[in-house]
Amino acid sequence: MINRRMEELGKAPSKIREIFEYGKKRKAEIGEENVFDFSIGNPNVPAPADVNKTYKNLIDTHDDIWLHGYTSASGDPDTRRAIADDLNRRFGTSFQASNLYMTCGAAASLKITITAIVEPGDEFITFTPFFPEYRVFVETAGAKLVTSPTDPDTFQIDFGNLEAAITEKTKAILVNSPNNPSGVVFREETVQKLAALLAEKEKEYGHTIFLIADEPYRELVYDEEIKVPYMTKYYPDTVVCYSYSKSLSLPGERIGYILVPDEADHAADLYAAVAGAGRALGYVCAPSLTQHVIEKCVGQVSDLSVYKTNRDLLYDALTEYGYTCVHPDGAFYLFVKALEEDASAFCERAKDFELLLVPADSFGTPGYVRIAYCVTTDQIRRSLPAFRKLAHAYGRS
Amino acid sequence: MINRRMEELGKAPSKIREIFEYGKKRKAEIGEENVFDFSIGNPNVPAPADVNKTYKNLIDTHDDIWLHGYTSASGDPDTRRAIADDLNRRFGTSFQASNLYMTCGAAASLKITITAIVEPGDEFITFTPFFPEYRVFVETAGAKLVTSPTDPDTFQIDFGNLEAAITEKTKAILVNSPNNPSGVVFREETVQKLAALLAEKEKEYGHTIFLIADEPYRELVYDEEIKVPYMTKYYPDTVVCYSYSKSLSLPGERIGYILVPDEADHAADLYAAVAGAGRALGYVCAPSLTQHVIEKCVGQVSDLSVYKTNRDLLYDALTEYGYTCVHPDGAFYLFVKALEEDASAFCERAKDFELLLVPADSFGTPGYVRIAYCVTTDQIRRSLPAFRKLAHAYGRS
Repeated sequence: MINRRMEELGKAPSKIREIFEYGKKRKAEIGEENVFDFSIGNPNVPAPADVNKTYKNLIDTHDDIWLHGYTSASGDPDTRRAIADDLNRRFGTSFQASNLYMTCGAAASLKITITAIVEPGDEFITFTPFFPEYRVFVETAGAKLVTSPTDPDTFQIDFGNLEAAITEKTKAILVNSPNNPSGVVFREETVQKLAALLAEKEKEYGHTIFLIADEPYRELVYDEEIKVPYMTKYYPDTVVCYSYSKSLSLPGERIGYILVPDEADHAADLYAAVAGAGRALGYVCAPSLTQHVIEKCVGQVSDLSVYKTNRDLLYDALTEYGYTCVHPDGAFYLFVKALEEDASAFCERAKDFELLLVPADSFGTPGYVRIAYCVTTDQIRRSLPAFRKLAHAYGRS
Repeated sequence: MINRRMEELGKAPSKIREIFEYGKKRKAEIGEENVFDFSIGNPNVPAPADVNKTYKNLIDTHDDIWLHGYTSASGDPDTRRAIADDLNRRFGTSFQASNLYMTCGAAASLKITITAIVEPGDEFITFTPFFPEYRVFVETAGAKLVTSPTDPDTFQIDFGNLEAAITEKTKAILVNSPNNPSGVVFREETVQKLAALLAEKEKEYGHTIFLIADEPYRELVYDEEIKVPYMTKYYPDTVVCYSYSKSLSLPGERIGYILVPDEADHAADLYAAVAGAGRALGYVCAPSLTQHVIEKCVGQVSDLSVYKTNRDLLYDALTEYGYTCVHPDGAFYLFVKALEEDASAFCERAKDFELLLVPADSFGTPGYVRIAYCVTTDQIRRSLPAFRKLAHAYGRS
């Protein structure tokens, strides 16, 4: 009398959560400082100071109905206007409040978008490696997730593979750049090529193929010269799914948005379907107080310098120790080839050195592990001898 | 290439929202004080003063990772323990943190619960009048909503109708007491009779029939002698869906919970399915800062005395003017028989007197209107002549 698929999903928590729970237990046993937990993508830098100041200031200066009352389902108009203005300033776009629909974070943005467009028999394509919850969101919406392998050395799009994956059933391509877990950013020429291919396929099949841009890591890029192209400028049938979880270090507050550009096919119907899906899924509005905070703090970003320090330290050391990994341009993950074929066995072995890594099988890339470096630089430093010993155990360096 | 049902849901905003939007427009035309807007259930009393103090105090005394970081998907353990303790104190139950799953409010609680238990061919039964979003939540989960008419004079359960509605396809009964929109509370003997009937039907059909108790109005009861029975004490297969929207006047913050009692059939599987459904629907966790506020403020209730004042004023006046309405024991709605057969036509006529009422057709009770009295007492007082004139227009008093 219970939905078995939901029961399974509840009982099989993600591998990431499982390792995170092991880490908590292990820390209690041998002391926090002796466990090197790289399992979870929980930002460890504080929000910009203005964020907490704004929470308090708004509470001091506004009445409770404004602070805590329902906003419209699509979100507070002032918040949406502030976000549109900020995007326009940064990307030379011309969005308005009416292009934005506020959500409870990226997962909600993705689930609402998928639900808004899904029809029976649909296929959604994503590139490996991919965030495992994509499979959950797509399959429980009644569609099929098709994975398109990227170039095994660079994790950039393999356009031959992608073209082979697109069929008349393709409803959308799910893109995550900067990527969790590889840290790879799709450069402008890649995005241009992707846009051209999708436009061609739209023509060939005579229907819209959406590009769903999952962008929680947009601001987490550590080198001046790396630009993250704004997808709507290259391909009109793009829906942007955004979250402030990483850029403002507010993952628990569940705040983000969906952006539907006017240029998309049947944009007004699509926006209505987004609103309808939000309603059907039980999302009444995004949390009101935090919406108001976003209005005031839009455009600010947490101090991400620690992530850059961590990335450089870890990337340099691990490649020196004989590990193979692609240089991550963004996000806060290092994606490393396991030193044996079975990444789960490798992660088990890593535990002997108190290193908690995540095998990437569920990301669609067996043989790799994800290292979340959104931890203290001190943890990185202290963990390096353990990474070296692990490499030694496999006969490296 | 868009899901038509979602597009429809987005384009057909609830009747309530439509009237609310008309009200905003009308107020801009003739002045706020000249429009008597009774359309929307947005609490107009502030949160208890402790709530805003707690927001600020937590920000001043805790680090950002604790304040704004992910909680576990089921919610912060301290928050859940505090809620369990409060329920146990008030209702003599013996819940633990592990019985609770924190959600983004009542709509999320309901949608997650329905998704956790739904299987193909299922029917969910609710009593008229009912909150119209029940239909949206149930139908978009792939099940059928069956409505069971209540006694037309008292809006209490008609057990003959209910028994006729229950079939082997019945998965759950959705109960909302105090009721939106009638204000009716199901008393202990009614709950006992309901529990006995459901237990009998479970035996007859050889499977679980859940009782889903939608309880956002639990604390909104205005007379000492009215007790709202705690459903799990009467029927073990009860899932409680709660929200702090009304009790703490925090509707925009999206905070509530699902309670799965240990006594429910396969309680552990059911709780897992709730967690799985939350995951599949894109709910990562309930907003973290507000979860922490709930931990500190649990058991507090906004000053609801204005609602009682409003209810008494409005009920006494309207019955005097010749309107027929059941005496509302709780919630903040007065449910009134329209003075002509077509409630929509009646509401149009009411607009001539700047009275904004909601026709109850979508609540499953044509011929009635809902008056949300969560407004200022001043608005109630100023609106009374208009209600009198409207009655006169129909030849009353």
